Amino acid sequence: MTLTLIIGNKNYSSWSLRPWLAMRQFGVAFNEVQIALYTPESRQQIQRYSPAGKVPVLLDGTIAVWDSLAIFAYLVEQFPNLPWLPKAKAIRAIAYSISAEMHSGFQALRHHMPMNCRAKFPGKGMTAAVQTDIDRITAIWRECRQLCGEHGSMLFGQFTIADAMFAPVALRFVTYDVCLDAVCSQYVQAILALPAMQDWLKAAEVEAETLPNFNY
Amino acid sequence: MTLTLIIGNKNYSSWSLRPWLAMRQFGVAFNEVQIALYTPESRQQIQRYSPAGKVPVLLDGTIAVWDSLAIFAYLVEQFPNLPWLPKAKAIRAIAYSISAEMHSGFQALRHHMPMNCRAKFPGKGMTAAVQTDIDRITAIWRECRQLCGEHGSMLFGQFTIADAMFAPVALRFVTYDVCLDAVCSQYVQAILALPAMQDWLKAAEVEAETLPNFNY
Ligand SMILES: N[C@@H](CCC(=O)N[C@@H](CS)C(=O)NCC(=O)O)C(=O)O
Ligand SMILES: N[C@@H](CCC(=O)N[C@@H](CS)C(=O)NCC(=O)O)C(=O)O
Repeated sequence: MTLTLIIGNKNYSSWSLRPWLAMRQFGVAFNEVQIALYTPESRQQIQRYSPAGKVPVLLDGTIAVWDSLAIFAYLVEQFPNLPWLPKAKAIRAIAYSISAEMHSGFQALRHHMPMNCRAKFPGKGMTAAVQTDIDRITAIWRECRQLCGEHGSMLFGQFTIADAMFAPVALRFVTYDVCLDAVCSQYVQAILALPAMQDWLKAAEVEAETLPNFNY
Repeated sequence: MTLTLIIGNKNYSSWSLRPWLAMRQFGVAFNEVQIALYTPESRQQIQRYSPAGKVPVLLDGTIAVWDSLAIFAYLVEQFPNLPWLPKAKAIRAIAYSISAEMHSGFQALRHHMPMNCRAKFPGKGMTAAVQTDIDRITAIWRECRQLCGEHGSMLFGQFTIADAMFAPVALRFVTYDVCLDAVCSQYVQAILALPAMQDWLKAAEVEAETLPNFNY
């Protein structure tokens, strides 16, 4: 099985990071095709792979899976022996719930504090709605870390899909210098320290494109 | 296993409809707890079940699963013998992709044409962005119906989670009288004709609450 992941700019594409990070962390081999986003050609380039016109897209032979969460559902079924998710039913239910909550929510944070790995914009983008999103996200992190964080530094101890879903948020908290309690700061540091995350950040650093809208 | 589904007003709560419809269609028994949305008490009432403060929430004993897509992921694992999704890998990948696309997308349609089962507002809410959403949704429907619609009237022939995800959109197309081609009109009619959908609509009809914001 040869897998190919279509992604956007590493500096900017938060949704691309999610499956990329998880596949790298779990040692699932894949080719990478990068498309520079928000150029005159990018929509058409993406549409060669996915009718939805967004990255990430996972190609498995002639099969195209688009949308980060659909890619995870697909990978979980194709690689059933990898620990994508916590095994215990009750904990697994939380992992599903918070991953879906991230997928559909936190619009204010996503809008006002777009991912920009290279940048430092302390305090920029903060609004009351953004703070509400941050409060909910940090409550999720604290709850997970308390429930089963003792066996590692990730949300459920070991790395799972849920960490991949929240990893871009951790990066945003660094870029915008969001004030965090000790548990959440440590979690952000643990996400930053993942080998695959280090690779992603190094690649983002040297990318040529700049997207002014993402500098907010 | 006693399952309880926490839902909002049947007339208005599109996200509640999704798991409710699928569980009814697949004959999964559950108790129903209804919370009237957007009242002074509703947030707090929902938070008794889910920290995310939104419906639907599925309770399975002490386990709470929130968010429609997480509920589906949970049900697929708990009832592995029910045909929640197409079996064939390539078709299943499409079902995952379009379900996730619905979950995170079509914001313009969702904002400007909120679900309101009882109402008829022909033409209301239409904007260029809404039309773009409608064009993409109807392209999805045509593509699925063409790929494997011959074995039934649902997106992939028989009813799956993907139909549950798009069912509230079908209701919106009726409420706002959206102009559709023959394939898509037939699909809307087939969704309306589902026994569980008929039950939902009858209950919506007699609900007492009215939410002016959902009358647009
Ligand atoms: N719900 C999708 C979101 C994907 C998404 O919004 N991707 C952005 C980049 S991070 C994109 O492709 N934007 C290009 C465009 O909209 O033209 C997912 O989870 O994958
Ligand atoms: N992504 C969630 C969305 C849930 C949602 O937005 N539910 C609405 C009703 S349809 C709600 O609970 N609104 C109440 C509130 O926000 O206070 C899902 O898929 O379940």
